[in-house]
Amino acid sequence: MFDPANLQFDRDGLIPCIAQDAASGEVLMMAWMNAQSVSRTLQTGRVTYWSRSRAALWVKGESSGHVQELVELRIDCDRDCLLALVNQTGPACHTNRRSCFYTSIREGSEQTIMQPVEGG
Amino acid sequence: MFDPANLQFDRDGLIPCIAQDAASGEVLMMAWMNAQSVSRTLQTGRVTYWSRSRAALWVKGESSGHVQELVELRIDCDRDCLLALVNQTGPACHTNRRSCFYTSIREGSEQTIMQPVEGG
Repeated sequence: MFDPANLQFDRDGLIPCIAQDAASGEVLMMAWMNAQSVSRTLQTGRVTYWSRSRAALWVKGESSGHVQELVELRIDCDRDCLLALVNQTGPACHTNRRSCFYTSIREGSEQTIMQPVEGG
Repeated sequence: MFDPANLQFDRDGLIPCIAQDAASGEVLMMAWMNAQSVSRTLQTGRVTYWSRSRAALWVKGESSGHVQELVELRIDCDRDCLLALVNQTGPACHTNRRSCFYTSIREGSEQTIMQPVEGG
């Protein structure tokens, strides 16, 4: 059986988790998990991070409704990074954009390549 | 002009960088960069991480030939995570698998879902 204790957490007890849209392959965001949030994510099927600013479990979309339904959780070779394939409801980013990675460096300058979702 | 100093590095001066296959959308790996490796990556078009174990710049594929040609570098909303869209030569993982995320948690157990590339 999988045990979150066998992951490699950093000195703060956290592991980065990349959320990828299971259908489109778009990388939506990266946030952090602790052992408890990994367990909750697997138990509930609802992606649950650890909020470093609030120092609390963060059920993604709990207040905004922009939930992430877990399709599959994967572990990398070093066991120190997770990849969550998700069904994302609405925008993943708090700026109302589909993805947090909406800034691109092009010809040496930052460009915004994605707009907020209307009524998101 | 973009200045790596305007990114949010952690207390070790590092920022996580997700490498995604620009053509297929597959998430290949996650590794770390410091300001110098961000600059080198943009200058050379060859993805260059910071090896925490060797405490040195790590030009991906320099010894293996499994290089990552940078297509585009993106920054997330908090400026504390990078997404590199890349053209990956050969496998990205040191286990000779295309991606480092070859272990999946299915029905509570870890399963290997990807095999090493032959002759990779």
